[in-house]
Amino acid sequence: MDRKKLVVIGGDAAGMSAASKVRRSQPDWEIVVYERSPHTSYSACGIPYFIGDIVEDESSLIARTPETFLEKHQIKALIRHEVAKIDPENKRVKVKDLSTHRISWETYDYLLIATGASPIHPDLPGIQAQGVFSLSTLQSGILAKNYVKTYQPKHAVIVGGGYIGLEMAEALLERDMSVSLIDRNEQVMGTLDKDMATRVSDYLQDQGVQLYLEESLIAIHTDTDQKVRMVETDKRTLDADLVILGIGVKPNAELAADAGIQLCDSGAIAVNGRMETSQKDIWAAGDCASSRHLLKNKDIFISLGTVANKHGLVAGTVIAGGDASFPGVFGTAITKFKAMEIARTGLSETEAAALAIPYQKATIESSTIARYFPGSGKIAVKLICRADSGLLLGAQIIGSQGAAKRIDTVVAAIQGNLTAQDLVYLDLAYAPPFSGIWDPIQIAARQLV
Amino acid sequence: MDRKKLVVIGGDAAGMSAASKVRRSQPDWEIVVYERSPHTSYSACGIPYFIGDIVEDESSLIARTPETFLEKHQIKALIRHEVAKIDPENKRVKVKDLSTHRISWETYDYLLIATGASPIHPDLPGIQAQGVFSLSTLQSGILAKNYVKTYQPKHAVIVGGGYIGLEMAEALLERDMSVSLIDRNEQVMGTLDKDMATRVSDYLQDQGVQLYLEESLIAIHTDTDQKVRMVETDKRTLDADLVILGIGVKPNAELAADAGIQLCDSGAIAVNGRMETSQKDIWAAGDCASSRHLLKNKDIFISLGTVANKHGLVAGTVIAGGDASFPGVFGTAITKFKAMEIARTGLSETEAAALAIPYQKATIESSTIARYFPGSGKIAVKLICRADSGLLLGAQIIGSQGAAKRIDTVVAAIQGNLTAQDLVYLDLAYAPPFSGIWDPIQIAARQLV
Repeated sequence: MDRKKLVVIGGDAAGMSAASKVRRSQPDWEIVVYERSPHTSYSACGIPYFIGDIVEDESSLIARTPETFLEKHQIKALIRHEVAKIDPENKRVKVKDLSTHRISWETYDYLLIATGASPIHPDLPGIQAQGVFSLSTLQSGILAKNYVKTYQPKHAVIVGGGYIGLEMAEALLERDMSVSLIDRNEQVMGTLDKDMATRVSDYLQDQGVQLYLEESLIAIHTDTDQKVRMVETDKRTLDADLVILGIGVKPNAELAADAGIQLCDSGAIAVNGRMETSQKDIWAAGDCASSRHLLKNKDIFISLGTVANKHGLVAGTVIAGGDASFPGVFGTAITKFKAMEIARTGLSETEAAALAIPYQKATIESSTIARYFPGSGKIAVKLICRADSGLLLGAQIIGSQGAAKRIDTVVAAIQGNLTAQDLVYLDLAYAPPFSGIWDPIQIAARQLV
Repeated sequence: MDRKKLVVIGGDAAGMSAASKVRRSQPDWEIVVYERSPHTSYSACGIPYFIGDIVEDESSLIARTPETFLEKHQIKALIRHEVAKIDPENKRVKVKDLSTHRISWETYDYLLIATGASPIHPDLPGIQAQGVFSLSTLQSGILAKNYVKTYQPKHAVIVGGGYIGLEMAEALLERDMSVSLIDRNEQVMGTLDKDMATRVSDYLQDQGVQLYLEESLIAIHTDTDQKVRMVETDKRTLDADLVILGIGVKPNAELAADAGIQLCDSGAIAVNGRMETSQKDIWAAGDCASSRHLLKNKDIFISLGTVANKHGLVAGTVIAGGDASFPGVFGTAITKFKAMEIARTGLSETEAAALAIPYQKATIESSTIARYFPGSGKIAVKLICRADSGLLLGAQIIGSQGAAKRIDTVVAAIQGNLTAQDLVYLDLAYAPPFSGIWDPIQIAARQLV
C-alpha cells in the first residue's frame, strides 16, 4: 500500500489510540495529531482523584507524552495546535499554532475527528469568576488544584449530582472543605432510578454533604478581587470560595458541522459502526462521535474514556485498511463516593417505561461477600428484564467494596441475550471471601422469575 | 393437590434448599430430612476460615438450625439420623437414629438424595492417627480446630494443593505454624494450566510454604500416644504434628447404587436437568449428583456449594410440581491464598487440547485498577477461545484484590456465546478505582483477536 497521511484532530483517548493502531498496521504512513491543550493521552476520569490528592502527581495521569509518541511510534503529536477548519473538498485542515499564532493549511489523505466534549458552562452572572471550575481537561484540573492549594478554600459548592459531582464531593471532603451539592433535579445520579438514587442521597448527607435538590444555580457572586464568594440558587444563597460545575458535557462537533458533516439529534457526529462520518475519508471517534445504544436502538451521545478507546481502536483499524465494527453501548457507568460504589447498565426502569417496553423489576439487598466473613458489606441490586421474554434489560448496583464491578456480569449477560432465568443458574464463582452462595445479582434474578 | 410426603436424605445445601423450596410451594406437605451429622445448612466452604480463626464462631457458618427449619418452615430436620437403605419398590427408607441406635422404616411419596460427598481418605499406614484431618463436614472442622487449640501444633503438613489445600495453608500460617504442602502432581491447582499454576506455586513459596511437588504420601508415623509425629513421602520425611488431607472428594452414591439407581462414570448419581434419577419419584441433588459440563458435553462430578444450591432449587421446584431445569456448569471456581486471588472457568488449555478442540490462547499481565490509583495490583489473565469461530471457551485469572471475581464476566460471556471479538467491545464498567480503561479481560481478548 502506498504511503498515506493521516491527520488526527484531538490527542486524547480516541485520537491517540486510533493513531497508535494505524501505526502498528502501517509503519510507513505519516501520522500527525493536533491537540489544542498542552497534554496528550491523559486520564480525564482521574482528575477528581488528582484534586483530592489521592493521586498526587499530574504526570501519573498521563499515559504517553508527545515525546513518547514521536520517539516510540513516529507519531507527530503537536500540542497547543488547534484545528480551526476542515476543508473536505481539498482534503486539508487549517491549523492554528496557539503558541506562535501562526496559521497553516495541512493536507490529509485520511482525517480523524477526535475533538472530545466540553463541559456545559451556563451563561449566568458571575460564571467567569475565579474559583469556578468545570473539569474536563487535565489543564483545567491542574488549574483547580493550584487554586485549592493557593487559596485554601473552605466552602465548596458543587453544581450537578452526577459522576463528576460525586467524585469531586469525595475529593473536597478529603481536603476538609464543607461541601454543598446543588442539583436541579429531584434526585442525584440521573442515570439511576429514583429509588436507587435515594440511597446515594442518604449516604451523601450521612457523610456530611449538604444536599439541595430541585434547586437551580442562578448566579455567582464575587468579591472585589473577582474571586467567588457566594452562590445564589433559586431558593437560597450559599457561602462559597470554590465552585465546581458538573452539569454535563456536550460534544465538540462544531468543526465537523461547519464542514458539512452530518450530526445526530444528540449533537454528536453521526458515524456508522466503522466510525465513518457522512464525508468520505473522514472518521470521528470518542466523545465527539455518536454511539449506538444497543437497547434503545438509537444513536446517543456518551462521554466515557472506555468508549473513546474502543472508538479509536475501530477507527484506527478501519483507517489502516482493516475490518472492525463498534457494536454499541449499554450505557454502563460506575463510580464511587467514599465507601459507596455505584454502577448501572442497560435500561433503567424509567427508560424502559419511556420506551414502552413491558418490563419487570426486582430490587434486593444482600451482602457483598459471605455474611460471616470479615469485610462483608451491604449491596443493593435492582434488576430489570422484559416482562414477555425475561431477557435482561438493565441493572443498578449500590454497595460497599466489591459491589459495583458485578455490573460487568450483567453487561455480558445482556450482550449474550440471557434471561433472568439464565442468570439464576449461571455458573458464577463462589467462595466465602468473594460472594454469598448466591451472588447478589442472582438473588435479584431469582426474585424476578 | 393432595398432601404428599417428601423425604430428604442429607440436610446441607442441596437437601435443605430443596426442602425449603418445596415448603414455599406446598404448605401442606410433610417434609422430613435425615442428616447423619449434628448440623444442617452450614457453609462447608467456610471451614478453613473457621480453623484459621478468621471466622471465630462455628455458629456463624450455620445458615439455619433444625429448630429454625421446624419453627419457621415446618420442616422436620432430624440430625444424627442416617439412612441405611432405600427401598424404591415399597417407597420407603431404612433410618438409623445414631443417638439411640433405633432402626425404623419410613415411607415417602417423593425422595430426594442429597448425601453430599466425602473426602478421599487413602488407605495408608497411620492414616487414622490423631491429628490427621480431612475437612468436609462442620463436625470435622470443629474437631480440627479443637485439636489445634488443645495441642498447639507447630508443623503442619498439607496433602494436596487444591482449593482446600491452599485455604488451609493460609489458615495455618495465620496460626503461626510452619506449613509444608505435598502434591503428587507436577503443579498445584490442577484445574489451572501449568503456566498459571506456577504463579501460585511461586507465591506459596514466597509466603513461606514449603512446597513438595511430584511427591506422594506413603505413611504417617505416630508417637506412642497415637498422635501424628512425622509424614513419610516417597522422597523424604517431614516433621508433622498436624496433617490436613485435601486430596479430593468422592460422591456419596453407594446408597443410591444399592437401590439400583444409575450412576455416571464419574461415580455421581445420574440425573437429568430436572434432577430426576433413573428411579421414579427419586431425585438427587448436590455433590452426590452429576452436573452437565456445558463445554465438555458430559456429566461430571463437581462438589461446590453454589452448584448444590442450584440443584436443590431445581429439585425442589420440580418435586413441588413446578417446572425448572438445571442447565449445567462451566467448572467455575474461585479461591484465595493470602493476597492472591485465583479463579477459573470453562476449559483450560489442557482440557481443550484433550478434547481436540481447536483453540487459541492469550495470557496478559495488567493492573487490577488504574495503575496510578492507590491499591492497584497485578493481575494475570489467560483467555481461551475456539480457533475457528472465536467463541470463548475459558479463562484463568490470578491477581491481587479485585482480580478474581472478574471471572464472572467471562462466565456470562461463555453462556451467551460471545466471541473474543465481542468481549473486546463489551461495554464494561470503567472508572479509575475499578479498572484500567481496558478491563484486563478485554486486554486478553484484544490479544486473542
